Amino acid sequence: MRTLHHHTLSAPSRKVRLLLHEKRIEFAEQIIEPWRPDSGLWSLNPAGALPVLVEDDGNIIADHNAICEYLEEIDTSVATIGKTPAERAEARRLAAWFDVKFATEVGNYLVGEKLYKRVAARDAPDSRMLKAGRENLHTHLQYLGWLTERRKWLAGEMLTIADFAAAAQISLVDYIGDVPWDDYPLAKEWYVRLKSRPSFRCLLKDSIPGVAPAPVYTNLDF
Amino acid sequence: MRTLHHHTLSAPSRKVRLLLHEKRIEFAEQIIEPWRPDSGLWSLNPAGALPVLVEDDGNIIADHNAICEYLEEIDTSVATIGKTPAERAEARRLAAWFDVKFATEVGNYLVGEKLYKRVAARDAPDSRMLKAGRENLHTHLQYLGWLTERRKWLAGEMLTIADFAAAAQISLVDYIGDVPWDDYPLAKEWYVRLKSRPSFRCLLKDSIPGVAPAPVYTNLDF
Repeated sequence: MRTLHHHTLSAPSRKVRLLLHEKRIEFAEQIIEPWRPDSGLWSLNPAGALPVLVEDDGNIIADHNAICEYLEEIDTSVATIGKTPAERAEARRLAAWFDVKFATEVGNYLVGEKLYKRVAARDAPDSRMLKAGRENLHTHLQYLGWLTERRKWLAGEMLTIADFAAAAQISLVDYIGDVPWDDYPLAKEWYVRLKSRPSFRCLLKDSIPGVAPAPVYTNLDF
Repeated sequence: MRTLHHHTLSAPSRKVRLLLHEKRIEFAEQIIEPWRPDSGLWSLNPAGALPVLVEDDGNIIADHNAICEYLEEIDTSVATIGKTPAERAEARRLAAWFDVKFATEVGNYLVGEKLYKRVAARDAPDSRMLKAGRENLHTHLQYLGWLTERRKWLAGEMLTIADFAAAAQISLVDYIGDVPWDDYPLAKEWYVRLKSRPSFRCLLKDSIPGVAPAPVYTNLDF
């Protein structure tokens, strides 16, 4: 069976899981701890990054963006990138915004310090990093609000990889209870809608060993 | 006319320029110095990153990957990603390898320190950074050799965005003469083939103010 090798702490993995569930593509799951030298990850993907999709015929699809595009090409029943080339470009631009910019400016600081460092290195977070991440988060929540005030979903009328990329990153920050939702009602309204979708259930069930989720994390009416 | 806003120091811009020339798509060029607050870049792309493509109707396509996918969708005369979903996934995986991994492990150290820092900040390079970049470069040249020993081009039989992404990154390291070509004959053979293509001429004409290219840079028979 098609198998996704992933980890609950990996935002790109969460993005692909949302996409698979939205497309109702069945898949088995294999949890990999990427920081373990014996995890087997490097033989699946020489870049050492999650997620990795392994097809029934043994073909390996690595790189989160390549996996999303691949799934869109082999399964056209539910479109998740957009219809016209311009719409698709906008969805890809915004997916990259969250995959790269949000990850660098917020995820690496907050999730990196509070979750990854604790789980993988059993180390305490650096308060300067947390401060930087919390400050940068405001800009991103403002931008989310700006987008959703003008559009139904982040990239336009359709739910796309832009929403999945954003939700994947934000869900991890939400796990540690660090999203100031009450200050950003537009971003919150968007996240509530996304969180209520059946595809999101898989993320809400995620549990990170040794770190209980913040109460807000599984609450659909927060 | 369709206009590409770019800079000679930006590897993602070089990738898109190669792609446009391979597809023989006509475009005007606008050089933007991204480190200048008055460059106008932020109004084109809120992520502040180059390149940005502006279409005749004013539509703005931002993010290097989104631009490549967009060009592939609007111009099907020359395929630059691949044919089957699996081939396309491999081209995208390798493009990301060079866009992200090579940039982080080599480009940011060597090109960042020797070119970007000098041109944008008039500052001297940090020798520890240069050492790290030179060491990491070996792994990437080995991987290039490994790929080209097995395949005609990096992702397979076809010339794809994987080759353009790799050449874009490597051409900047070559500009400063830091590629130990003689130690990596397979990687060199691949680069010679690519460098001889008409699409590559635009890069060979590039000149970075205040930094002359290494003699090897424009030499097709190095």
